[in-house]
Amino acid sequence: MQRGSKGTDMARRVEVAENVLGANERIAGENRRLLDEAHLFTVNLMASPGAGKTSLIERTLETLSRRTRILVIDGDLATDLDAHRARAAGADALQINTGGECHLDANMVGRALQQFDLERYDLLIIENVGNLICPAAFALGSHKSILIASVPEGDDKPYKYPTTYQGVDALVINKMDLLPYVPFRMDRFQKGVELLNPGVLTFPLSCRTGEGVSAWTDWLVKEIRERRPEE
Amino acid sequence: MQRGSKGTDMARRVEVAENVLGANERIAGENRRLLDEAHLFTVNLMASPGAGKTSLIERTLETLSRRTRILVIDGDLATDLDAHRARAAGADALQINTGGECHLDANMVGRALQQFDLERYDLLIIENVGNLICPAAFALGSHKSILIASVPEGDDKPYKYPTTYQGVDALVINKMDLLPYVPFRMDRFQKGVELLNPGVLTFPLSCRTGEGVSAWTDWLVKEIRERRPEE
Repeated sequence: MQRGSKGTDMARRVEVAENVLGANERIAGENRRLLDEAHLFTVNLMASPGAGKTSLIERTLETLSRRTRILVIDGDLATDLDAHRARAAGADALQINTGGECHLDANMVGRALQQFDLERYDLLIIENVGNLICPAAFALGSHKSILIASVPEGDDKPYKYPTTYQGVDALVINKMDLLPYVPFRMDRFQKGVELLNPGVLTFPLSCRTGEGVSAWTDWLVKEIRERRPEE
Repeated sequence: MQRGSKGTDMARRVEVAENVLGANERIAGENRRLLDEAHLFTVNLMASPGAGKTSLIERTLETLSRRTRILVIDGDLATDLDAHRARAAGADALQINTGGECHLDANMVGRALQQFDLERYDLLIIENVGNLICPAAFALGSHKSILIASVPEGDDKPYKYPTTYQGVDALVINKMDLLPYVPFRMDRFQKGVELLNPGVLTFPLSCRTGEGVSAWTDWLVKEIRERRPEE
């Protein structure tokens, strides 16, 4: 093997990447401990830009915010549009602007957690940066990772973005109301999902019409209850 | 400033990132030189997953491939689905699988260029990995960077992904046929674009219906002609 400057550069890149991911795992573990102590069920929502993360949060708040105390942490490169939308829908919300970073990391989330009395909430929704690749590599400390796919993105996405599809605990298929207008074959999509993540919990729904949203919120309520301390 | 292990780690990350981007710029310059020598007009297509990069390539080939010699380089995490589609539509095509990498870089493209007699082609379309963030940081040597937005992604995308919107030479707005079915306000979208990239060339179209595609292909033909050597 060549050990010229190119080899050294590559070795250095790998070393730095390993350090970064190792540190992230450690901080994610600390976040998880805080969330467990507060009995705060936490989901990490990941998706392409525009698949409907914020819309799903709005629908979730609409259904649950009267009986469930919800905190939202929104990640975006820029703007606080999403935190505004979450607040308007009735949640406490904090916006993280990542600057150029293409994903949230455990450290950003850890700093955000320090700003809240976590015991006051039943559900924490972390809205990751819109990106189907990078967020999957960075654990945040959440209990469940959720991927939101959307019908107009096309049925080939599981095949082309396998790492994200592989690692998630549940899959939301949003914009089901657009099925008649786009060339999306549900059987092809589901075959890809099944190959990568057999039996993964799946919620087909439409944030626009509201159809299917109750199965999603029922599941959240069940998960919240399981973490509630015995009274 | 603290100079503990955290500071050193961060300084090292910044140094590595600067080295990587510097090396990329250099190789992008070499790619550009090769493309210029071959009079090969080259576009770098960037978009979210599912915005329609491959569909736009298919439509472009449908219109141009009889009179224009087209080469396609497809970037994806996994699969060669896109290169298959480009070949089926009449182009020579090469698939680059990036493994985990969330974007193409100049080195990947440079290696791909070595596999072809560039003089034989009039147009090179590079389809980047589906990602609205990372590809914008890595020049490839192309003459024009193109962003494909799509209507179902929503009208807030320029505000939330400013770096990509800022840096492109032209903007395609795909899936215009879905306007009646989704809450997309064109005035809000265009106001965001105008703030970030005033006067940017814009092609609203639908790859599904074909409407608006000819303005896009006419522009490509004009750009190809401008680079053709005097005979």
